[in-house]
Amino acid sequence: MTPATVVTLLTDFGIQDPYAGIMHGVILSRCPYCNVVHLTHELAPQAVVAGAFLLQSAWTYFPDGTVHTAVVDPGVGTARRRIALQVRGHFFVGPDNGLLSSALPDALRGRRSSGEAYATREVAVPDGVRAVAIENPDLMLQPVSATFEGRDVFAPAAAYLAGGGTLEDLGSRVYSIEAFSELRAALAGSSVDGLVLQVDRFGNLITDIHPEDLPAGATLSVAGHKIPLAPTYGAAEGLNAIASSAGFLEIALTNGNASLELGAGRGASVVAS
Amino acid sequence: MTPATVVTLLTDFGIQDPYAGIMHGVILSRCPYCNVVHLTHELAPQAVVAGAFLLQSAWTYFPDGTVHTAVVDPGVGTARRRIALQVRGHFFVGPDNGLLSSALPDALRGRRSSGEAYATREVAVPDGVRAVAIENPDLMLQPVSATFEGRDVFAPAAAYLAGGGTLEDLGSRVYSIEAFSELRAALAGSSVDGLVLQVDRFGNLITDIHPEDLPAGATLSVAGHKIPLAPTYGAAEGLNAIASSAGFLEIALTNGNASLELGAGRGASVVAS
Amino acid sequence: MTPATVVTLLTDFGIQDPYAGIMHGVILSRCPYCNVVHLTHELAPQAVVAGAFLLQSAWTYFPDGTVHTAVVDPGVGTARRRIALQVRGHFFVGPDNGLLSSALPDALRGRRSSGEAYATREVAVPDGVRAVAIENPDLMLQPVSATFEGRDVFAPAAAYLAGGGTLEDLGSRVYSIEAFSELRAALAGSSVDGLVLQVDRFGNLITDIHPEDLPAGATLSVAGHKIPLAPTYGAAEGLNAIASSAGFLEIALTNGNASLELGAGRGASVVAS
Repeated sequence: MTPATVVTLLTDFGIQDPYAGIMHGVILSRCPYCNVVHLTHELAPQAVVAGAFLLQSAWTYFPDGTVHTAVVDPGVGTARRRIALQVRGHFFVGPDNGLLSSALPDALRGRRSSGEAYATREVAVPDGVRAVAIENPDLMLQPVSATFEGRDVFAPAAAYLAGGGTLEDLGSRVYSIEAFSELRAALAGSSVDGLVLQVDRFGNLITDIHPEDLPAGATLSVAGHKIPLAPTYGAAEGLNAIASSAGFLEIALTNGNASLELGAGRGASVVAS
Repeated sequence: MTPATVVTLLTDFGIQDPYAGIMHGVILSRCPYCNVVHLTHELAPQAVVAGAFLLQSAWTYFPDGTVHTAVVDPGVGTARRRIALQVRGHFFVGPDNGLLSSALPDALRGRRSSGEAYATREVAVPDGVRAVAIENPDLMLQPVSATFEGRDVFAPAAAYLAGGGTLEDLGSRVYSIEAFSELRAALAGSSVDGLVLQVDRFGNLITDIHPEDLPAGATLSVAGHKIPLAPTYGAAEGLNAIASSAGFLEIALTNGNASLELGAGRGASVVAS
Repeated sequence: MTPATVVTLLTDFGIQDPYAGIMHGVILSRCPYCNVVHLTHELAPQAVVAGAFLLQSAWTYFPDGTVHTAVVDPGVGTARRRIALQVRGHFFVGPDNGLLSSALPDALRGRRSSGEAYATREVAVPDGVRAVAIENPDLMLQPVSATFEGRDVFAPAAAYLAGGGTLEDLGSRVYSIEAFSELRAALAGSSVDGLVLQVDRFGNLITDIHPEDLPAGATLSVAGHKIPLAPTYGAAEGLNAIASSAGFLEIALTNGNASLELGAGRGASVVAS
């Protein structure tokens, strides 16, 4: 007996409604032996960059063969493409709006320039990655709703792949997809120009600063505060920065909420110098 | 090998406490091969009509044989009945307070009159549906708590059915249950008298108005605002109404929160004319 | 075919981030046939006593062989031990900070004195319980993060046990662990000196008062209010106290939120006399 194929779900649908549960039902109806894992549905509404970050921080911890289904989709019901990718034994399903960027190598996606926010651009799909547009109406729930493609398009596509279906049955090959640049702070002379990617429930600010990019002896500036680096939460006092579990610099307040204390949230500027 | 039987859970227990997890444990203790799916536990406390709506919007997306367990139960510990139903290969378990209304056909439940809120009345169980009162103390966790029948009564009943047990073992047949009228706006002359059934996390107002009931060229009136119809979220601007994924008219604010903008929530009046 | 081993997760990580989903992924990567159940991740940040209470109220409802993984860990990254226990066919994995107290018998842990908050002390591991320190680097994800041992230490340890691994492979035997006293109100002459352990989403205050400790005809005093006892929610009116489903006295407000009404939350004093 082989283990059940894992299907992860990452959306901004929230958990007060049964949207995520309905996707779960659609998947089990079409792939009864799948094992559905809910990564999160409480992403800030339409926060595509944060969604791309969370997916990047999670997907490599799942077994080979996992189908990652991500739906943060301000363009639902418009002409933007829906795509499916296969990368290193994992599958990805979602809208073509940068959410699935971490399926492409960082180097290929380039680095953000100082002063710019994250934006998508068309990036060529490299060797080792296969990508298709999801187009086959027979593998969708008909009629497709104008507002809930998670149920009608993405869940059936994920179930099809999880059940052993091939990428090519979903639609035609595509050779470029929309992707964000590498999630990594820009360099600006001797300083590092970072952004807050996400605020977790403890109020910790997860930045896009890679510790290895820091100048020696750096401190951080956020919202007019200077913040030192600390080795562990336990050792830290007051506001401090620490390498987070996802490999980025994270700003915390010992026994408190850094986001509230600093008045800084998703998208805020963090400069290291 | 047959797939694991699916058991869905829909409650207003919230997710900050382990109540839903305890029900999950009780089900796995009694039905080790069940596959438990959490539809939502963040329903507004004691919102039975909203619960009935969410269950209606979800259950048909699950595989045949699924046991839907719904507990929104202001009358817990009092004399209200607990019931289990079998309908078109699905099972339903919950209190007899209208929550399981969607197990009965719309036509049988009748239509709401203009100016009335949703209320339950006794409706005869039709051919094709079997219903019992859950009464068998041997299939409950003893002693039954006065406050948590989800754990002591409903989870064991769901596990029993999911494990292949028969409805009749749970208790005696019943021939009528409490049900809400069809979730569908009332007709008032040439206008349609609707109500907000649910507010989702985006602040969209899901109404009980069926698009096919709308007069030609209708606009909506909510809390003193006039709202036009739009074909898709992507095409819409400002406040607009769109057919939701559950087949009802839904009021949205492009890049915003319609509920906050309108100051209108669950139960608010929405008139189409 | 034997049923999948159940692994429960109880943390304060919240559900807006994929931390819990990442633990789920790590477990499935190392134990493909495990069945992961999320007890709650919305525990108040760093609320170790409340976490110990929730685990106590939940674990006995799970099947034998279940691995309970609890991570509420203000000391992450410092020298506090990580432990794994085996008790009556269940396993427990988590930090050695009192969170796993319910794995030890109440009698052994002693009773809180009047006027004291809950604090941990070292308690000898009794016959019938086996305990080890989690130390084996080969059973961790390397390098171990300073901030997310849930992913790197506790999830792999839980997966190892769920997959049939032995406790002793994780690390060396320990003969005492940190534990809270029994979760039970102190006696102070003829009155009972209780504390609020948890506030649920309905605003009910779950106290540490065992109904059998109440003096005859007792009423409760909370935040300057006198509160009577009621037999069921259905029968109650206004503020009232009732035996909760976990066996403790719980203070509720009929059709309202007792915590808001009383201005009392976790840790508040509740005196019965």
